[in-house]
Amino acid sequence: MSRDARFEEQAQALGYRFDGEIKIGGNYVPLVRDGHHIYLSGQIPRVGDTVVVTGAAGAGAGASLADAQKAAKVCAMRALALLQRAVGSLDAVQSILRITVYVQSAPTFTQQSEVADGASEVLFAVLGDAGAHTRTSVGVLQLPKNATVEVDLIASVRT
Amino acid sequence: MSRDARFEEQAQALGYRFDGEIKIGGNYVPLVRDGHHIYLSGQIPRVGDTVVVTGAAGAGAGASLADAQKAAKVCAMRALALLQRAVGSLDAVQSILRITVYVQSAPTFTQQSEVADGASEVLFAVLGDAGAHTRTSVGVLQLPKNATVEVDLIASVRT
Amino acid sequence: MSRDARFEEQAQALGYRFDGEIKIGGNYVPLVRDGHHIYLSGQIPRVGDTVVVTGAAGAGAGASLADAQKAAKVCAMRALALLQRAVGSLDAVQSILRITVYVQSAPTFTQQSEVADGASEVLFAVLGDAGAHTRTSVGVLQLPKNATVEVDLIASVRT
Repeated sequence: MSRDARFEEQAQALGYRFDGEIKIGGNYVPLVRDGHHIYLSGQIPRVGDTVVVTGAAGAGAGASLADAQKAAKVCAMRALALLQRAVGSLDAVQSILRITVYVQSAPTFTQQSEVADGASEVLFAVLGDAGAHTRTSVGVLQLPKNATVEVDLIASVRT
Repeated sequence: MSRDARFEEQAQALGYRFDGEIKIGGNYVPLVRDGHHIYLSGQIPRVGDTVVVTGAAGAGAGASLADAQKAAKVCAMRALALLQRAVGSLDAVQSILRITVYVQSAPTFTQQSEVADGASEVLFAVLGDAGAHTRTSVGVLQLPKNATVEVDLIASVRT
Repeated sequence: MSRDARFEEQAQALGYRFDGEIKIGGNYVPLVRDGHHIYLSGQIPRVGDTVVVTGAAGAGAGASLADAQKAAKVCAMRALALLQRAVGSLDAVQSILRITVYVQSAPTFTQQSEVADGASEVLFAVLGDAGAHTRTSVGVLQLPKNATVEVDLIASVRT
């Protein structure tokens, strides 16, 4: 199965579509290409106009671990959708150099790595070995639009 | 108008000068050059010895949205001043690959993107199309010296 | 003295060994090599199975400034241990492009730069001039496993 087909499979499993406009919330660009490298702006779990997971992970009224992992998956899918559009097919992705996963956290929530695993799983599921990546996950106080997770990424591409 | 002239124009609009020493607060260097890439250390809104905007954005006793946007502008101006000194003129900047904008935030403050727009506006105003950049903005609990904003940056230069 | 010998000297001064497995806590890889660049995943102060410094810096029941600086040193040593294994000897490190230092902070703790100096000192002590680096230090609400500090790094290597 091609990576693009696996991307569709992941989208269906999540129950969201990623073929519309990937909206961003400010005065910048979603990606910058520099030779074989592509830098992606921080992605929050926005689908269309809606941030689908909000609130602090681990807080009573906020997001559960499962919610936050889902948020991380949606962020990773947005990142892959942007890469796919930039280079035509995810088969052109050579490696993922870095992802940084920011998790809006309740003060006592320490499972940022487990949340970030949601993003990592999507990368491995879609890209296979090329989805291996370095990762930094941290717990932050807030994120734009009260998003539970934000993920940015640097990729190396072949074309 | 040259980019260096536009830089002066922005400095005057902000009411600060950026031609003195750009002080940093620890045992590291303000920038590292690697081929055509320049990595800049995190910049807080320090002018001379004074951090000109402090406190959490959105907190009663802290910084308003406008204050925080101004802080982001000062951070971006410091970054541009460092780039200018490193390569002689801002006309040598080819592109801005990434900025990360850390906003000291009150727990309910979710306008980190709007704060970061302050930095983005300065980059576009001074660099024009070359100021297009990817961006990640997050809300953190604290920053060095109680600064309201910290911005780091990776640039690609021609020389 | 070779850099590898200076690394051993630092390890002895800290009282920890870094020759066992460098464990990471999720579904990703500790480093990715891309040409002459090596991206390292975020390192917490884990030695073997134990995170040796936990809690918020500056909080009564948390970590003192000295504790947090020690945590930053252990993070930097883990990063150097990973680099050493990847390229055979630390003598192959050409420069450190960036470190980002995340400090779990109490709300009023503003000495993130002083904490980060712990990591910077280790880099200079072991690598000499090649240890010069850009740095961003921020105060976050939480970190994986309640770690006091997390450090990630991008290095340029010769081989």
